[in-house]
Amino acid sequence: MVERMVVIGADATGMSAASQARRMRGPDDLEIVVFEKGHHTSYSACGIPYWVSGDVADRDDLIARTPAEHRARGIDLRTRTEIVELDIPGRRVLALDHTTATRAWWHYDKLVLATGATPIRPPLPGIDLPGVHGVQTLDDGQALIDTLEAAHGRDAVVVGAGYIGVEMAEALIRRGYRVTVLTRGEQPMSTLDPDMGALVADAMRGLGIRVECGAEVTAVLAGDGGRVRAVTTPDAEYPADVVVLGIGVTPATGLARQAGLPLGEHGGLLTDLAQRVHGHDDIWAGGDCVEVLDLVSGDRRHIALGTHANKHGQIIGTGVGGGYATFPGVVGTAVSKVCDLEVARTGLGERQAREAGLQFHAVTIESTGRAGYFPGAQPMTVKMLAERRTGRLLGVQIVGRDGAAKRIDVAAVALTTRMTVEQMTALDLGYAPPFSPVWDPILVAARRATRAVAQQP
Amino acid sequence: MVERMVVIGADATGMSAASQARRMRGPDDLEIVVFEKGHHTSYSACGIPYWVSGDVADRDDLIARTPAEHRARGIDLRTRTEIVELDIPGRRVLALDHTTATRAWWHYDKLVLATGATPIRPPLPGIDLPGVHGVQTLDDGQALIDTLEAAHGRDAVVVGAGYIGVEMAEALIRRGYRVTVLTRGEQPMSTLDPDMGALVADAMRGLGIRVECGAEVTAVLAGDGGRVRAVTTPDAEYPADVVVLGIGVTPATGLARQAGLPLGEHGGLLTDLAQRVHGHDDIWAGGDCVEVLDLVSGDRRHIALGTHANKHGQIIGTGVGGGYATFPGVVGTAVSKVCDLEVARTGLGERQAREAGLQFHAVTIESTGRAGYFPGAQPMTVKMLAERRTGRLLGVQIVGRDGAAKRIDVAAVALTTRMTVEQMTALDLGYAPPFSPVWDPILVAARRATRAVAQQP
Repeated sequence: MVERMVVIGADATGMSAASQARRMRGPDDLEIVVFEKGHHTSYSACGIPYWVSGDVADRDDLIARTPAEHRARGIDLRTRTEIVELDIPGRRVLALDHTTATRAWWHYDKLVLATGATPIRPPLPGIDLPGVHGVQTLDDGQALIDTLEAAHGRDAVVVGAGYIGVEMAEALIRRGYRVTVLTRGEQPMSTLDPDMGALVADAMRGLGIRVECGAEVTAVLAGDGGRVRAVTTPDAEYPADVVVLGIGVTPATGLARQAGLPLGEHGGLLTDLAQRVHGHDDIWAGGDCVEVLDLVSGDRRHIALGTHANKHGQIIGTGVGGGYATFPGVVGTAVSKVCDLEVARTGLGERQAREAGLQFHAVTIESTGRAGYFPGAQPMTVKMLAERRTGRLLGVQIVGRDGAAKRIDVAAVALTTRMTVEQMTALDLGYAPPFSPVWDPILVAARRATRAVAQQP
Repeated sequence: MVERMVVIGADATGMSAASQARRMRGPDDLEIVVFEKGHHTSYSACGIPYWVSGDVADRDDLIARTPAEHRARGIDLRTRTEIVELDIPGRRVLALDHTTATRAWWHYDKLVLATGATPIRPPLPGIDLPGVHGVQTLDDGQALIDTLEAAHGRDAVVVGAGYIGVEMAEALIRRGYRVTVLTRGEQPMSTLDPDMGALVADAMRGLGIRVECGAEVTAVLAGDGGRVRAVTTPDAEYPADVVVLGIGVTPATGLARQAGLPLGEHGGLLTDLAQRVHGHDDIWAGGDCVEVLDLVSGDRRHIALGTHANKHGQIIGTGVGGGYATFPGVVGTAVSKVCDLEVARTGLGERQAREAGLQFHAVTIESTGRAGYFPGAQPMTVKMLAERRTGRLLGVQIVGRDGAAKRIDVAAVALTTRMTVEQMTALDLGYAPPFSPVWDPILVAARRATRAVAQQP
């Protein structure tokens, strides 16, 4: 008998799962039906800021595989079709086809929830005015670009200073806007410690971006034409011809919640290591709608990131396909850039470490990305946290230029394998003058952290 | 009673050891005397190609700390003073001061051998002609630059195509020379597998460098003025106004050999994990004159590289200072560049793995350093070796451009911690479109290698 795999959501997790399952099981054995409420499949949401900035010329460049390409590979892909109800005991889902405005129940043998995340849209006066944009989907990106090209004015406000907010600020600067970034936080990039976030703020200001920290948005004001005109905080009013919301996202788990599936404290679905939803052997979930295990703190976190979503899809597809693969968890690696400034973090920051009940030493060193005498050598700041007594690496943050960001990967592997900072001092990292000082900045930080651990028992 | 630490050699290992010992023990407790036969201290030999190319303007930029600076820190540094004999039973060394042409015995309580390495100079006819240069020391570099600036002609031959040979070829091209690289090997960069070395050869030829493989040099010919005129192989004669020898180096352990200290099969001193010479509790050795443990194969190797030399110096200085530190070994990481081509390797290549008795799967993948749609994304080739059955990572080689070289560090940490390629597929590496595709090339290679291991039990 042919089984049916039903996938809800056709981006990274859903389509990776479908493709991998199809590689392992042919159409005579497994029918694969994917429901996608939007128009597009398998696209890089992370690339939207670079499309808005003009670095990426065409929307289609962000699409790894179109619906037609998926269909040609034996996947029954239904776009503009939204799942509006899950009937778990009945093993079926209710699909609403927005094109035909018809509803139908679909039976499943294997169900994959890949519903992604929803941008946070605070319930503020004026938040839905024309000219206020989220940037989660390609359709969102297109709407923003349409606004920018309509050239209503040259003032932009970005609300939120996380990765998306900062990347969007750069994109808007490059489009010639005067850009103000408003964040409630002490500094931009709240996943960095404030001392490292301050370096990012300095760099952003150096690019001409106005950065206002501790700024709680109270309203979005309309102008004469009914479009956005300004954003207000308790202290000020910032002119805005366009507003971009980069406040973050929440797991899109409304359906799952209604169906009584288990959710964690961050609102994401809870899964086992094979990405099966707790208590349900035939339901998988992955990507932005689940919580992931933080291997450093042991806590579950919600991290919306394409690289996790793709891995989850692979693992789910392998499971549905009858193979075996697991996702052990994350260490919280993230990298970003603001013009030529590179920003990276992995593991725990100071606040997170304290919340996890850890005591630690934090050290910060200054070095360069190349040998100091090599042309183009640029400063690099590395902050490292090591657990008190054990010396176990807990986290690293890097702010620098050429070659700074991907250096975080060394720390990501060290965290995964639970190295101590003293063990790290002996790492055989690549050295040549164009790529590193003879002591790589990561090694310099590890040496400093080792001393700190030794000095306070 | 004040002890005396005697250090032979004032580059990375010797001066790191002296400085670290001085930090830990004051002059009332430890006298530190360093003998250096040349003029300079603490310089970056790895930087010489970039000084020759003109990237680094001034020789002094390559000097991290001058003799005067070391002396100001309480180190009795004696340049142009060569140690010509070791008397181990008598705990003394015989110093020849080349400035005054006097000899004197110096007692030691702690001895550090940091004598470095000597460039291989094959006993060929004409090898000592004017215009034939090694590039091991700053003095060598100055002599080469003097030759180049005397402008005897525009033809250069580089003998040897290891890291130094390739870097010197680029330096000479940038100085406007017609450059031929002669190597006995099947491809340049014999520390890479031939298939990966071929990519380097292609890139070198694309820069206008003539690369002749399988070319055994038979003689260096003199011209009318007694200077070098050409280099010959059995098949051809290559015009040469300057010749650079980049054949490699051997440990400078002549003194140690005479004194009966234990040497390994590559001619380097044998030490324990604290860098103490086997059988001698009060003699340490490190840097280019020792053999190091290869953590992947379990063999001892000779690897002349500044980053190891500096680490050894730290460890020796800590030991002499009364502290505790060890050097666990290397995994064989090396990175280099040829113009914008980046080349990196770590762990074992195919030949080395076979010699170590290992069976393995080798996979090669093509990817890009950034998201494929991101401007400037360049191809990157990653080769990965995984042990048969266990799936343990054995080695990685990377040839690519922007951001290729330092990606090797992920593999270096994975080798150090003995990860399997399947464990690597779950690594939480930094992802953002300017820095990586959503599957980092290392992850793509690890996935491919995981499949290969699974397919052949």
